Amino acid sequence: MRLFRNDYSEGAAPEVLAALIATNDEQCVGYTEGDPHCEAARTLIAKACGRDDVAVEFAIGGTSTNLVCVNGMLHDWEGVICTPDAHINVHETGAVAATGRSVLPTRDADGFLSPAEAERVYRYQTGTGRHMTRPAMIYISNTTELGGVWSLERFDAICDWAASHDLKVFVDGARMASALTSPAAEGLTLEHLAARADAFYLGGTKNGLLFGEAVVIADPGLREAFPYLIKERGGLMAKGRLLGVQFEAAFTPDETGEAPYWRLARSANECAFRLREGLIALGFEAYGEAPSNQQFFALEPQVAQAFVDAAGCEVFQELPDGRLLTRFVCSWATTVADVDELLAFAKTL
Amino acid sequence: MRLFRNDYSEGAAPEVLAALIATNDEQCVGYTEGDPHCEAARTLIAKACGRDDVAVEFAIGGTSTNLVCVNGMLHDWEGVICTPDAHINVHETGAVAATGRSVLPTRDADGFLSPAEAERVYRYQTGTGRHMTRPAMIYISNTTELGGVWSLERFDAICDWAASHDLKVFVDGARMASALTSPAAEGLTLEHLAARADAFYLGGTKNGLLFGEAVVIADPGLREAFPYLIKERGGLMAKGRLLGVQFEAAFTPDETGEAPYWRLARSANECAFRLREGLIALGFEAYGEAPSNQQFFALEPQVAQAFVDAAGCEVFQELPDGRLLTRFVCSWATTVADVDELLAFAKTL
Amino acid sequence: MRLFRNDYSEGAAPEVLAALIATNDEQCVGYTEGDPHCEAARTLIAKACGRDDVAVEFAIGGTSTNLVCVNGMLHDWEGVICTPDAHINVHETGAVAATGRSVLPTRDADGFLSPAEAERVYRYQTGTGRHMTRPAMIYISNTTELGGVWSLERFDAICDWAASHDLKVFVDGARMASALTSPAAEGLTLEHLAARADAFYLGGTKNGLLFGEAVVIADPGLREAFPYLIKERGGLMAKGRLLGVQFEAAFTPDETGEAPYWRLARSANECAFRLREGLIALGFEAYGEAPSNQQFFALEPQVAQAFVDAAGCEVFQELPDGRLLTRFVCSWATTVADVDELLAFAKTL
Amino acid sequence: MRLFRNDYSEGAAPEVLAALIATNDEQCVGYTEGDPHCEAARTLIAKACGRDDVAVEFAIGGTSTNLVCVNGMLHDWEGVICTPDAHINVHETGAVAATGRSVLPTRDADGFLSPAEAERVYRYQTGTGRHMTRPAMIYISNTTELGGVWSLERFDAICDWAASHDLKVFVDGARMASALTSPAAEGLTLEHLAARADAFYLGGTKNGLLFGEAVVIADPGLREAFPYLIKERGGLMAKGRLLGVQFEAAFTPDETGEAPYWRLARSANECAFRLREGLIALGFEAYGEAPSNQQFFALEPQVAQAFVDAAGCEVFQELPDGRLLTRFVCSWATTVADVDELLAFAKTL
Repeated sequence: MRLFRNDYSEGAAPEVLAALIATNDEQCVGYTEGDPHCEAARTLIAKACGRDDVAVEFAIGGTSTNLVCVNGMLHDWEGVICTPDAHINVHETGAVAATGRSVLPTRDADGFLSPAEAERVYRYQTGTGRHMTRPAMIYISNTTELGGVWSLERFDAICDWAASHDLKVFVDGARMASALTSPAAEGLTLEHLAARADAFYLGGTKNGLLFGEAVVIADPGLREAFPYLIKERGGLMAKGRLLGVQFEAAFTPDETGEAPYWRLARSANECAFRLREGLIALGFEAYGEAPSNQQFFALEPQVAQAFVDAAGCEVFQELPDGRLLTRFVCSWATTVADVDELLAFAKTL
Repeated sequence: MRLFRNDYSEGAAPEVLAALIATNDEQCVGYTEGDPHCEAARTLIAKACGRDDVAVEFAIGGTSTNLVCVNGMLHDWEGVICTPDAHINVHETGAVAATGRSVLPTRDADGFLSPAEAERVYRYQTGTGRHMTRPAMIYISNTTELGGVWSLERFDAICDWAASHDLKVFVDGARMASALTSPAAEGLTLEHLAARADAFYLGGTKNGLLFGEAVVIADPGLREAFPYLIKERGGLMAKGRLLGVQFEAAFTPDETGEAPYWRLARSANECAFRLREGLIALGFEAYGEAPSNQQFFALEPQVAQAFVDAAGCEVFQELPDGRLLTRFVCSWATTVADVDELLAFAKTL
Repeated sequence: MRLFRNDYSEGAAPEVLAALIATNDEQCVGYTEGDPHCEAARTLIAKACGRDDVAVEFAIGGTSTNLVCVNGMLHDWEGVICTPDAHINVHETGAVAATGRSVLPTRDADGFLSPAEAERVYRYQTGTGRHMTRPAMIYISNTTELGGVWSLERFDAICDWAASHDLKVFVDGARMASALTSPAAEGLTLEHLAARADAFYLGGTKNGLLFGEAVVIADPGLREAFPYLIKERGGLMAKGRLLGVQFEAAFTPDETGEAPYWRLARSANECAFRLREGLIALGFEAYGEAPSNQQFFALEPQVAQAFVDAAGCEVFQELPDGRLLTRFVCSWATTVADVDELLAFAKTL
Repeated sequence: MRLFRNDYSEGAAPEVLAALIATNDEQCVGYTEGDPHCEAARTLIAKACGRDDVAVEFAIGGTSTNLVCVNGMLHDWEGVICTPDAHINVHETGAVAATGRSVLPTRDADGFLSPAEAERVYRYQTGTGRHMTRPAMIYISNTTELGGVWSLERFDAICDWAASHDLKVFVDGARMASALTSPAAEGLTLEHLAARADAFYLGGTKNGLLFGEAVVIADPGLREAFPYLIKERGGLMAKGRLLGVQFEAAFTPDETGEAPYWRLARSANECAFRLREGLIALGFEAYGEAPSNQQFFALEPQVAQAFVDAAGCEVFQELPDGRLLTRFVCSWATTVADVDELLAFAKTL
């Protein structure tokens, strides 16, 4: 049975792998600058964003992208407001602190940074002047850590709040493709996001690339900083064309006119929704709204263990009632048949 | 004409690319731990080193490897002695300083760290106690920045010196395969190197992998630190198996009993030697000893420019007499025919 | 009226100032090493701690001490568990993050780090291995930020917990003299503290010195690190003897056999207790237990403002019921007459 | 005999000590903001600089000042050009690297940063774009490490060079008073320096204060950064008024109309010149030009040792001919009688 552990279990999607093979023997200059594939990918992505005044840069993974962007958008004594479950706050081994910047978590429990909580943290941090880290940006994730999807209305509300306090907006888009192709986006488009965020990235690692994130930068400070910082922090690839080749393939429209980047994510989402509905129909209890490629269920321990063993699911935490919060992830590689096989297995539990 | 710009212009060597394709659909756990390919690569590399008491870790590139290793082997107030042209001293945008450690260059002009110069720096730095950065390790590169190859005797001499001062030894092996397969190694084997260095790495990016370096760690402190630091610094791949797959392919002996890792490097070296001899025979002046896959020539400006234009050569610096120090690099992809085509071109100049 | 703003409003206590004047014309070597006053102070403090196997070092202030000690006791990828109101978590402008280490706050609301909350954070942080900052020490303050005093029993409980998880113990003692001379210490002595903590400091700035903290270090790693780190972080005084002279004066027993360091703190405490009882007798509501030189009251806004205006009190926060948490601080310079003058003023409100 | 070891051997000059005593019982707000003495000192210093558009901040010592200013004037990936003997390059235990910035030394051997050498380093560092640390400021010291004094002409030349490359100018003024009162300043005034430097400091520690440096900041970025950075790096004094009181005393003109800050330095210089001439007259060989309060002589080892033993002189290094470079330092506390006593002793050698 295909595992539902995560969306980076497999290698590359066919289109991406084919592009790597096709270009393997080319001799290109290195470091993501000046080779035709990086330039083509840059153009495709900027066009998809509807802006010609942004820089498009490439990085090898989410942590590297986050630490470079947070570092480059903040002064040494400044901090970034985010939710407590934000990737930068918990799962990056202190990567932001390691660059000298501070992470300032709110108490938002649902993965969405709220203006009210952001305001509370902002007031607290600015109450005693130089004695506390000064907030200068917000960090949000789309999708959130719990698979949530930012709607247009919700996104505009937090951007408005940030603008009213002169804070920059950075969006971690490790799973941006899943978010923007979700019905729950309710009007939030890539163009709109690109128009409001000071920087964000379009994740490749979790959407069919071997690795790689494309960073879209409007912020002038980060535009200047990124080329240096990505090298200084060890994130600049010698064979930079690998990033260009993959993103070029992902953003080149296929015969239907849609880029694989969006098609792969839509496919993962649809499998996830089928899985969700199927499990609910079988009597399992979904946990929260997760209109994206990750689904969470509250399961009895022995049921959770059965899914862990058979489908590679991960248990996130123990809930207060003793049940286990269990995650199912679909990827571009997941098929309807894979989902149905899982559901058939679930029926036996 | 094939370019002689560098050894990371092409994609992956055929064996490596084939392995990536063959394993693309496998579902593996991430982060270089627990997947079968990383484990197989670890075993193959440790065996090649003749040690079962070292940790083998993986990184995505040279700068990332260097900054994690220097950071992990030094305390905050310590420094690393190296030559002035050391990669960590010049071409990593201050990556070591960015982790808070100091680089302490000697005045060695030939790329080889000498005991005499190391001693001078050591004495200078330790003369006033806490007021100066304390040296705690040495950094050497094999091959050196100028294509030099450490002989057994020279390597043992600097290791002896380091041991007598209780300094750790770290070897940057971005081009280690070229160095160890060179006749100029004069007895310096991987086993010997592994027996004396506290940490070193076997470069993949410049020897037929898409990317990747295998880090061999004896130092207990770095063994503990590396797994955390590589994540904290953004160098841990989600699809860690990509590193395992590639190094497994590179270190699995072929039908001749030799691992591609060594065969590819030997081929690059042989092309480089043919190129060197050919150019010398044509009356061009070689610059320094470079018994590896990089060759340096002192050329009149217009001749240098011709090689830049036609073969992608890089000019390193202007020499005092006005000639230009020009580099020719052969890779695993370079063929004898490629070299002969270059020599035919050279004849026309 | 004497202000009750804080315990660092005045200059130096008479004994300390006299010592500075008496030694002003001496010529001493610098940097806190080798001058007779630093050596004398070291000996006096080590003796008071009942240990001859600790290093005694000097620093200029609390933030400098905290950042050097946390940095020196942690690896780059490690973190320190503390309460959310810990000075290092809120009032040092991200000083610990600026050295690359992570602060890991619990949810303890009363200023005391509890084993239960520390355990929760420890489990959370160690649940996913390298992906999260590894806790390696605890930080507690005595007195706490809210004027609380650690009893022997409570201190032993958190030390036992830390020992059972192999975590180091660091005690911020900016107001240690007030804590150890408080009845609420219930048996916690300097000797006992010195026997169990890996490092702690005896604050001078808030107890009658112009400035200065004496750091007592048992931890071998920090013993090695401190002399270098204090210089690297800019905290080493050229005229180091100033620290020695002041701590020598503070720890030299007077005619009664008691060192001024303890006598000054006891005097501040007694004034604070008189103030507390007097205000309570006048019907004001004390906030929490604060058996030390800081007293907190929940006051109606206009009453709070009157104390701010007349006595320099500081308002800490607005309480849920709209009253203001207001702080009164007594120092070595506060007299019984000063307290009575304040109480007379309070009577008029 | 008075020692000639350095200019921070004694405590405070009489005027400064008197001010500390006179203000000891005042209650002041902390942290160098809002107390009358810091404000008065700020006004006096800004007026002496002839500018009302600069910020005047206070720090506790040279290393703290340097690391905060270099950090605050540079981005993470930038570096500072200086001479190889610059204090930040050698005697601060890697303090600048510890904040993540790079020090880029020239080969200037005389302590003066030259436009030619600065140009060479600038070209080298900017030759390969993002792969090398980008120079963004220059650091010079007045006086230099070898007691040299910048003349107006020389200062303007390096400032012109820096301006032509868009680099900021920072002047380490640990011994600025000695420099600006030296005849060798040849027209370089405080006003002129303040008009051209982006930031500099007026050292107090080595000119009659117990401790303290006054930092004059024109650079807008550093003006914003300094209040936060000085706290984040542990350099902000709780009893900030101590810095204000001392600088207020030092810059308040006495009955002759001259501020003690200048009078004390002139006195130290005059003693140093008398010492220099006296030793030369006795046949000792002066080393280099040192028209300030430090004097260097090349002495036979046994003679050097005699001065070390009797006068606390320090030996800087062994010269190629075996003689020892020996330093004599006069301070505000040195008298003509002290110098004559030393000369009488010298006669006996």
